[in-house]
Amino acid sequence: MRIVVIGSGTAGSNFALFMRKLDRKAEITVIGKEKTMQYSPCALPHVISGTIEKPEDVIVFPNEFYEKQKINLMLNTEAKAIDRERKVVITDKGEVPYDKLVLAVGSKAVIPPIKGVENEGVFTLKSLDDVRRIKAYIAERKPKKAVVIGAGLVGLEGAEAFAKLGMEVLVVRRGDRATTMLDKDMAKLVQEEMEKHGVSFRFGACPSEIIGSPVKAVKIDDEEVEADLVLVAAGMRANVDLAKNAGLEVNRGIVVNEHLQTSDPDIYAIGDCAEVIDAVTGERTLSQLGTSAVRMAKVAAEHIAGKDVSFRPVFNTTITKLFGLEIGAFGITEERAKKAGIEIAVGKFKGSTKPEYYPGGKPITVKVIFRKSDRKLIGAQIVGGERVWGRIMTLSALAQKGATVEDVVYLETAYAPPVSPTIDPICVAAEMALRRFH
Amino acid sequence: MRIVVIGSGTAGSNFALFMRKLDRKAEITVIGKEKTMQYSPCALPHVISGTIEKPEDVIVFPNEFYEKQKINLMLNTEAKAIDRERKVVITDKGEVPYDKLVLAVGSKAVIPPIKGVENEGVFTLKSLDDVRRIKAYIAERKPKKAVVIGAGLVGLEGAEAFAKLGMEVLVVRRGDRATTMLDKDMAKLVQEEMEKHGVSFRFGACPSEIIGSPVKAVKIDDEEVEADLVLVAAGMRANVDLAKNAGLEVNRGIVVNEHLQTSDPDIYAIGDCAEVIDAVTGERTLSQLGTSAVRMAKVAAEHIAGKDVSFRPVFNTTITKLFGLEIGAFGITEERAKKAGIEIAVGKFKGSTKPEYYPGGKPITVKVIFRKSDRKLIGAQIVGGERVWGRIMTLSALAQKGATVEDVVYLETAYAPPVSPTIDPICVAAEMALRRFH
Repeated sequence: MRIVVIGSGTAGSNFALFMRKLDRKAEITVIGKEKTMQYSPCALPHVISGTIEKPEDVIVFPNEFYEKQKINLMLNTEAKAIDRERKVVITDKGEVPYDKLVLAVGSKAVIPPIKGVENEGVFTLKSLDDVRRIKAYIAERKPKKAVVIGAGLVGLEGAEAFAKLGMEVLVVRRGDRATTMLDKDMAKLVQEEMEKHGVSFRFGACPSEIIGSPVKAVKIDDEEVEADLVLVAAGMRANVDLAKNAGLEVNRGIVVNEHLQTSDPDIYAIGDCAEVIDAVTGERTLSQLGTSAVRMAKVAAEHIAGKDVSFRPVFNTTITKLFGLEIGAFGITEERAKKAGIEIAVGKFKGSTKPEYYPGGKPITVKVIFRKSDRKLIGAQIVGGERVWGRIMTLSALAQKGATVEDVVYLETAYAPPVSPTIDPICVAAEMALRRFH
Repeated sequence: MRIVVIGSGTAGSNFALFMRKLDRKAEITVIGKEKTMQYSPCALPHVISGTIEKPEDVIVFPNEFYEKQKINLMLNTEAKAIDRERKVVITDKGEVPYDKLVLAVGSKAVIPPIKGVENEGVFTLKSLDDVRRIKAYIAERKPKKAVVIGAGLVGLEGAEAFAKLGMEVLVVRRGDRATTMLDKDMAKLVQEEMEKHGVSFRFGACPSEIIGSPVKAVKIDDEEVEADLVLVAAGMRANVDLAKNAGLEVNRGIVVNEHLQTSDPDIYAIGDCAEVIDAVTGERTLSQLGTSAVRMAKVAAEHIAGKDVSFRPVFNTTITKLFGLEIGAFGITEERAKKAGIEIAVGKFKGSTKPEYYPGGKPITVKVIFRKSDRKLIGAQIVGGERVWGRIMTLSALAQKGATVEDVVYLETAYAPPVSPTIDPICVAAEMALRRFH
């Protein structure tokens, strides 16, 4: 069987490895635009800050690792079109025939139509080459003032990196909070932490022009704000053109069924480019997380190998660390639930990560969201000084198993003074929500 | 309604507070032997090590706090008997009538029949007074060599405290590993860590005599081992005499139904003294964890207040920290499952707490145990340098919701380079177990 993957990112690289484990004989080929296989896009801000020393460090395996597993690499190669009748991929280096084709074509940074956005000193933060360019620019120009336009997690993590390098950073957002991953009350906690570390915010604002090349200022609502580095972090858009031109069903992403097959059952789509199911609303959504990409790669490989597996609807469980805070979330926010007309019960509790009598506890704020109709946990947001990951994972695991408000209130937790309090903040937050059911 | 609680520990104190929240008018009385209300028994080793400064620091609320909530405190008082016909508790300070009675009478340290066990310098570690005595003895005698007999978590945490104070510590166990909470392979990791920090172990050994008062040596298998402090940590036994003498059904603990009612529906038992249901085997068990005590207190109070609530079977989710390791576990071990004739699939994986390219990751070993008949997660053990709590909580939450091996393999996890790897060790361990199903 000839299995061809287009895309050498997290989804494509992991797919090739999973596929090889499941089928020692299949002919597996990866077609990729970049020079290397998978690296971690989430690690890129940490390369800028210097926490990770060299850009190359974030490459998970060298190309030889894949070649040793008899995975054919066609890197530096662009897939131009798919001829579904002849079952071939047409690339700038010739045709590649396939029995099964996997689209792992990823996403690209959205570039807002701002005058001067192509000027020197204006960057996106999506690829290893982006990082190399930013590091070279910083080394050469020693910028003092950075403006970050838009603020997904990439924007905030970029802002943190710049601040750690000693720059004054301004984050400019059209929206009204630091990150749309969180409700406004929770986003405020993140904002305050970042402000303490030299990052300022301007909300409801729209940059109209980037002045100078190299950049000197950003025009925001008729005011010129000094800046010698600009990061554009206005979100990601799924790469759908190749699929669309091949006549596959496409929406905001490439439409797939529960086995990750596109409208052509011999063609799968995985990773940032695939449109999957939102576990809360049941609607189509883009997940665009590394963890989702890896699970999609696994499910697609297993399905091609003949297993009856499905990719489960996503809660988009997310974690990040910004300065002294861990921030975790999954599912729907209070605000989005209200917009979607879902009746909810919300619980919020601010506690400590350790019992009062044990030194070193840190504040932690937990917000949990339950659906009134079936009492199920459909979202949570946690911001705190430590152990946020464990709590958001616990709640997400519960939600993935259909837990109700009672399941969280009466959850058996683990307690030891150096580690956690007897009554966990997640249980208290759920108790607060339970009261709103009556 | 007159509600009387016997016992002022974690279960009793929390019960009184929960009950007051649910019923502003009830007459609530706590009868307790000690001088104070709830303190944290799990915190006691940390008072010995000095991490928590004063013994009094571990008292959760002062007596006045309860009195302000109109909870009658009868402290320094011993309950001698229960007259179920007249519905009164007979104490050394008179009779106390009740409509509902809650037994929160706790457990006591098991004292093995070793000659000299009552000598000066031999301690248990169960109460605040124990800690005061140990601290006074250490201050006065400045012991150099400690022997810990038996090794539940209390024993190991005590051993850690003594080592941190600069003592040479020997842990002596009749069994073959550092803690029965873990399988032998996992307990070995704990042992190695403790050995690195000056704690040595002797297994399959039985102390026959404690020599000297103050203690000078412990006779172990005909060898005299020098020791100027001995900690006896041979487990806890539920206090059942009061219930037994009142004609209530008693086994290893006081037998209760799912609402925590004893064989007399007007009498409840909660905390260390109550025998509850093991979630894995369905058999009766003693939980004896602070977290279980608090949940039992909550359920009993709610049931008395008229709510239809049940105490769920326990997985006994446990966490501790010993030197540089966090250790977590719940459910059944591989060894106990085999003894119980349960066919299981085990997965074990040693990974890192962070992605390879991010600095500061620590080793973590995850062992997961699934029941073959229904593919369900019935136990897990984790030993690692950080973030063990979050992983054992995630797995325990999954088990509490009846998760299968596939639920763990395909679990949606949260990833960020400073926090966790893309493919979590818990998922890899489950994958290892999945292979054993075929």
